[in-house]
Amino acid sequence: MRIVCTKSELVKSTSIVMKAVSTKTTMPILESILIESYNDTIKLTGNDMEMGIETLVKGIIDEEGTVLVEAKMFFEFVRKMPSDEIVIQSNDNQVILKSGKSEVKLAVKDKNEFPVLPDIVKSNMITISQFTLREMIRQTIHSISTNESSKLMTGELFEINGDELKVTSLDGYRISIRKVKLKESYPGIKVVIPGKTLNEITKIISGGIEDDVNIYFDEKNVLFEFDDTIVMSRLIEGEYYKIDQMLSGDYETKITINKSELFGCLDRATLLIRDSEKKPVVLNITDGVLRLELNSTLGAMDEDIEIIKNGPDIMIAFNPKFLMEDLRVIDDDTIDLYFINSKAPFFIKNDEGSYIYLIVPVRLDAVI
Amino acid sequence: MRIVCTKSELVKSTSIVMKAVSTKTTMPILESILIESYNDTIKLTGNDMEMGIETLVKGIIDEEGTVLVEAKMFFEFVRKMPSDEIVIQSNDNQVILKSGKSEVKLAVKDKNEFPVLPDIVKSNMITISQFTLREMIRQTIHSISTNESSKLMTGELFEINGDELKVTSLDGYRISIRKVKLKESYPGIKVVIPGKTLNEITKIISGGIEDDVNIYFDEKNVLFEFDDTIVMSRLIEGEYYKIDQMLSGDYETKITINKSELFGCLDRATLLIRDSEKKPVVLNITDGVLRLELNSTLGAMDEDIEIIKNGPDIMIAFNPKFLMEDLRVIDDDTIDLYFINSKAPFFIKNDEGSYIYLIVPVRLDAVI
Repeated sequence: MRIVCTKSELVKSTSIVMKAVSTKTTMPILESILIESYNDTIKLTGNDMEMGIETLVKGIIDEEGTVLVEAKMFFEFVRKMPSDEIVIQSNDNQVILKSGKSEVKLAVKDKNEFPVLPDIVKSNMITISQFTLREMIRQTIHSISTNESSKLMTGELFEINGDELKVTSLDGYRISIRKVKLKESYPGIKVVIPGKTLNEITKIISGGIEDDVNIYFDEKNVLFEFDDTIVMSRLIEGEYYKIDQMLSGDYETKITINKSELFGCLDRATLLIRDSEKKPVVLNITDGVLRLELNSTLGAMDEDIEIIKNGPDIMIAFNPKFLMEDLRVIDDDTIDLYFINSKAPFFIKNDEGSYIYLIVPVRLDAVI
Repeated sequence: MRIVCTKSELVKSTSIVMKAVSTKTTMPILESILIESYNDTIKLTGNDMEMGIETLVKGIIDEEGTVLVEAKMFFEFVRKMPSDEIVIQSNDNQVILKSGKSEVKLAVKDKNEFPVLPDIVKSNMITISQFTLREMIRQTIHSISTNESSKLMTGELFEINGDELKVTSLDGYRISIRKVKLKESYPGIKVVIPGKTLNEITKIISGGIEDDVNIYFDEKNVLFEFDDTIVMSRLIEGEYYKIDQMLSGDYETKITINKSELFGCLDRATLLIRDSEKKPVVLNITDGVLRLELNSTLGAMDEDIEIIKNGPDIMIAFNPKFLMEDLRVIDDDTIDLYFINSKAPFFIKNDEGSYIYLIVPVRLDAVI
């Protein structure tokens, strides 16, 4: 194989496939990048067995061929080569990178051992703008679980009903839901995509409103297709949690509050809570005023925020980090919170129904 | 005590004294900030016993007084207070921070236990621009030692002779020297200032060419005075290393080389050296060409750089990180390297003599 690429093009493409290269693995073959050059197309592939990425690189093919290289070393050298042009040449034993007056030889791996990406049946497909997909993920990914023993909680539920895409994440203490209208209607789909895949997707897609992503689904896999790249990922199998009952929308007390003031107040309160204590905050909601009072071994705090309240007074205790993480991904300046009683989950939602964030409280009698 | 300050002023001043607040200490009293408000002056002090910082804060004193607070918690709350104005009020048991509708109470510590900064005799003094002082430190601090068993190597030698300031640092493998002309002449001074103090100074001073620093010296301490701040530090005691003999300036071979090309070449070479190996690079210098060849378990590299050479050919081996760290702080595009033989230290210096960087080589017969 002999190909010639610009440094910038090669850096960009390699950085994309690096997202699917294993860093901690017992299978060293997964720490590689496959370079294939056939029929005027140069393609890079990374595959960590859960997620695989293929991307095309612009360049000139002088001689067709395939080579498997150690990913990290290859990427570092590509980034640090002296000239704007890089020649990649390979034989059975080594790959040679040439740039300016620098020449580097790296060992190659057995390309036949590298796992090929599975084929996907491209029947079920939706199209969404890169910007919208990235926003949907960013606004829900904070409430997935990192605990691998509840595998379904480590992913996000993607549901398509007609022209609506609904994304749900939950970790047993809270739920995040975002809904968006698609440009077209599609047959129903219900799959759980691993959180790791979604995190990497948000880093790779350019995020333009005009740029689209095609997402294909089959029984076991999902495939994202955009620009010159495809990202393929296994789905998480199993029946997702039934949460409709928690989302009836019934409430007793509704308050309207400035989001930044509430965030700042919780942010200060967490300074007085040692990480080891996991002490909740208590909100005391009365006519026109939300009051946060906190006493800890580190100090005391007392703060009032003006609100608009409908319904009875209520006191409720919860982990402030959960609410702060929700507030961080809500763009509205003013938000509505809904409470049933001090033992039932409370939630934030907007009138259009494009988001719902639900938090399970801590029992008040355990706090006071 | 009762004072009123703007949030921005308080954040700025607190962040300065935080540099002298202990984070890892067996003496919790050193994790504090002393706030003193007397005679229209509000002063913050931090002191970790090696370095002490005092800075003035603009503000209104409603009631004079002194209070000692836990530094980290105080700083975090000051940064996160909701309003632009912060009231600090104290009694014997607590300090109360008020800002907007937020009120926070923190415990106070016994102010009598806080160590006062030592007095310094302000007889020996020099004046230097903040910009120059910061540059002198930045360009030499990389070659101090972090090994506390050679205490003198953890500091930098500051020598004043007439109107010249010379700063020297060394770690047993290399030496960095910078010289600069001062605006006035001063009596001779020779002291070793701790590297930690110098590092913190570069973070605090604004670095303007028009802004001066006064530096006072006595037998045991050094005091930097600038803007509304003083930084006091213990000196490192002892006789500094005699290195004049190594700096005779004699050489056999001189080369002139592009700094960026040499840096890039070394940077690529280090990719092929595992941290655990500490393998040196070998430069092969012949007429017009510097060649770097490297073979390691990770791969091979071969690179030529054009040079101007005077004197005999030479091969020399050394730790590439040392030379890279020197090149990073040299601003010239083209530099001169001087070699005696493959066993003697080689050095970089400019014609004006404002810098010398010396590196001890690795024995060639141990490499090849």
